[in-house]
Amino acid sequence: MSSAISMNKTEVIDSVLNDFSEGYFSISYENRRRLLLELAKEYDLDRTQVRELIKQYLGVSGEEAQSPGPEDEGVLASFYRIERNLRHALKPKYEALFERLNMHPGGLKFLTILRADILSIIAEENIVSLRALDSHLKEKLGTWLSPAALELHHITWDDPASLLEKIVAYEAVHPISNLLDLKRRLGVGRRCFGYLHPAIPGEPLIFIEVALLKNVAETIQEVLWDDPPIPESEANCALFYSISSTQPGLAGINLGKFLIKRVITLVKRDMPHISIFATLSPIPGYIQWLLSKLASQSNLAEDDKSQSSADTSGSTFGENLFEPEEEKAIMDISEEFAAGKNGMEVMLNLLTSTNQEWSKSAELLSVLKTPLLRLCARYLLQEKKRGKALDSVANFHLQNGAMVERINWMANKSEKGLHQSAGIMVNYVYRLENIEEYAQSYFSSGHIHASDEIRRFVEPLKKPEATAN
Amino acid sequence: MSSAISMNKTEVIDSVLNDFSEGYFSISYENRRRLLLELAKEYDLDRTQVRELIKQYLGVSGEEAQSPGPEDEGVLASFYRIERNLRHALKPKYEALFERLNMHPGGLKFLTILRADILSIIAEENIVSLRALDSHLKEKLGTWLSPAALELHHITWDDPASLLEKIVAYEAVHPISNLLDLKRRLGVGRRCFGYLHPAIPGEPLIFIEVALLKNVAETIQEVLWDDPPIPESEANCALFYSISSTQPGLAGINLGKFLIKRVITLVKRDMPHISIFATLSPIPGYIQWLLSKLASQSNLAEDDKSQSSADTSGSTFGENLFEPEEEKAIMDISEEFAAGKNGMEVMLNLLTSTNQEWSKSAELLSVLKTPLLRLCARYLLQEKKRGKALDSVANFHLQNGAMVERINWMANKSEKGLHQSAGIMVNYVYRLENIEEYAQSYFSSGHIHASDEIRRFVEPLKKPEATAN
Repeated sequence: MSSAISMNKTEVIDSVLNDFSEGYFSISYENRRRLLLELAKEYDLDRTQVRELIKQYLGVSGEEAQSPGPEDEGVLASFYRIERNLRHALKPKYEALFERLNMHPGGLKFLTILRADILSIIAEENIVSLRALDSHLKEKLGTWLSPAALELHHITWDDPASLLEKIVAYEAVHPISNLLDLKRRLGVGRRCFGYLHPAIPGEPLIFIEVALLKNVAETIQEVLWDDPPIPESEANCALFYSISSTQPGLAGINLGKFLIKRVITLVKRDMPHISIFATLSPIPGYIQWLLSKLASQSNLAEDDKSQSSADTSGSTFGENLFEPEEEKAIMDISEEFAAGKNGMEVMLNLLTSTNQEWSKSAELLSVLKTPLLRLCARYLLQEKKRGKALDSVANFHLQNGAMVERINWMANKSEKGLHQSAGIMVNYVYRLENIEEYAQSYFSSGHIHASDEIRRFVEPLKKPEATAN
Repeated sequence: MSSAISMNKTEVIDSVLNDFSEGYFSISYENRRRLLLELAKEYDLDRTQVRELIKQYLGVSGEEAQSPGPEDEGVLASFYRIERNLRHALKPKYEALFERLNMHPGGLKFLTILRADILSIIAEENIVSLRALDSHLKEKLGTWLSPAALELHHITWDDPASLLEKIVAYEAVHPISNLLDLKRRLGVGRRCFGYLHPAIPGEPLIFIEVALLKNVAETIQEVLWDDPPIPESEANCALFYSISSTQPGLAGINLGKFLIKRVITLVKRDMPHISIFATLSPIPGYIQWLLSKLASQSNLAEDDKSQSSADTSGSTFGENLFEPEEEKAIMDISEEFAAGKNGMEVMLNLLTSTNQEWSKSAELLSVLKTPLLRLCARYLLQEKKRGKALDSVANFHLQNGAMVERINWMANKSEKGLHQSAGIMVNYVYRLENIEEYAQSYFSSGHIHASDEIRRFVEPLKKPEATAN
């Protein structure tokens, strides 16, 4: 196995690569970990050589602080030569193995499996050399899986069962319950498109499910269960209701962006009567964010009550997440349903109660609806991480050029839906004429485009924030 | 147009890339040259930044000459960080444009056209910055066109005319004279395979033509004109008689190697009765090499005659390229056909005579056959450049793992065949069991594997070389 790695200077024989990948599959997780660590540490770059070249480089640039003028072709040639060598020296030795595997039949698939293993190791342990290896492998995979190399495939009921079984296995958003369910998702009024790579035949790397509808759907129930579908010629809207990646080893490589763009172009061409391209998307991070916000703010509120405002504990003013009327309504029901010193604590207790009991009471639902929707709009439009939307699905669609259109109450009543986002789902809309402009402004300034309707949820909050009672 | 280049820091809008490529097509060669030069010089790397990072790097490595031990995770992390930054700083800015174009519909094709232009500019002028740009673009294209991303397509008479027209247009080895000729090359007893890339649909990047024969063909005439072909079930040999690249902009990127390997695997699988995989190949550099050898050696021979052997002119002993009996036979015919002070000068004059007159005389042919075949074997087996076979086609097949099997007299009587290689063609043979071993030894030591038959042409020469008379 080590011969595949160590044969860095010469052509590697195919059989060695075969042995390497077969050997890798046959060993335990612990031995894979050891092998990958050895690869990361022993087949890294040659730092002595880098230092040598760096000295040469400084020698050529001499004392001048400036780059050579355009006329100094001779000096320029020296720069190019040393830069080329330096660039080469900065490539870890294991890149050669990756490159060779990529050219080897089955090698690309093998590399995605290798990366999936690496990702699970570094999720457990922070090993810098393995992280460095991962970032190299990720970059390489990103290059090899460039959209230009991917084929858009319209997946139908006529496709081989071996391909369709992948769809069933990897549908990550709305699990496919049986063959009938799958058949409906590929039938009239529905489309499913996948990206195939020539080196990984019969297995879409990512696929998207589309429903052809009269209007932008508000709930996933109507997408998964509308029976019978409307005639396709009456559809105005192509609704993307699920997008799933099949390869854990391709995490962080955005294939979906190009898939969506190509699907829009294709649908537009085949069905010019379709003018709306929208999604019905989960909000996977909403409740997690809300719970941590409720917990911390509820504590702060208690601190504020018990301490003087001149206290130097370092906490800024606590913020009541609720409007006064919401706070009152929540406290009114607290006696019957859940205890709590304030509205936030009550909400926290309700949301963490077993079996999502809150969702089964009409009374609770009517009280919680307004604050949960409003805070969801705030989460989607205002909560950021490094200048980008905190919610991963929001960030995905916004960077692709979508806008936030509408949030929908009780749009996904499945256990997962209630758990992730209190059953709320969101429609992102792709407006053809704005996609590029929106992607651009989100990319450069983090600006999130949103409809007036959803913006209204958060704008009242812009008045001076109410402190805790 | 410049906006596509200068928007390096942000996402580029598709329409800008469209404008860029359309703009490029509309401008003159001279303006393209100016644009490419600007790209190479003004969008190069930032050398101030490189120098800055280099200083940081030397700071981290400090006085120690050694790399950090495996335990210094902290130091290692600093190394990784600066190395990553340095790697990034060493990327010229124009790489971002290439990467973006690659993801853009039609962009990959556009880049191959761009590179074809660059190659024709640097063939005329040696501009270092443009050469540097070319080597970056070549590397990128090589990555994007990795064999894993290419689809092997069996080209048949049922393919669209728009694809078949490309075969006719780009067949570089044995031009296709008419539709009937094309149909025969795709019909019974023949195969044609091409590599397609998803981003350049309907246009094979490279294709190979195969004849299914009883024996390894000796002449191209029998391949192109055998009528009718033998039943495929009786074939023992798959003969590769033509391999052509359609994209001048992909020069230097070896797609043929993988194509041949995949075609062998495919033919072997579909027709297990085929046991011999061979080529019938041109020897494009033979006569050019021979003429320059004849000219220089003929002059040396004259010098040696007129000067003393202690002379310090720096010339080593001249070498008569001919065996004594060949020399005699050539001088015997020189009176009738061509003048010359010695055999080499006579041969030089014969080979450079107009309309290849020498090939029309049976008498001349019988005299020239032995020395031309012998010198051809020497050219193929012994003449090297940087340790590799001097002949480009020989180098191509040898690096793919073939061996030199046989040379054939009057195997291509076309004007081109006579001009390039005095009508001689060569069979390279791919022996499945040796392909990898041969490729390996050629790669590492330049060793050329050859049959005993062809080796016999050159081994007598290993006796102490005869000096000029």
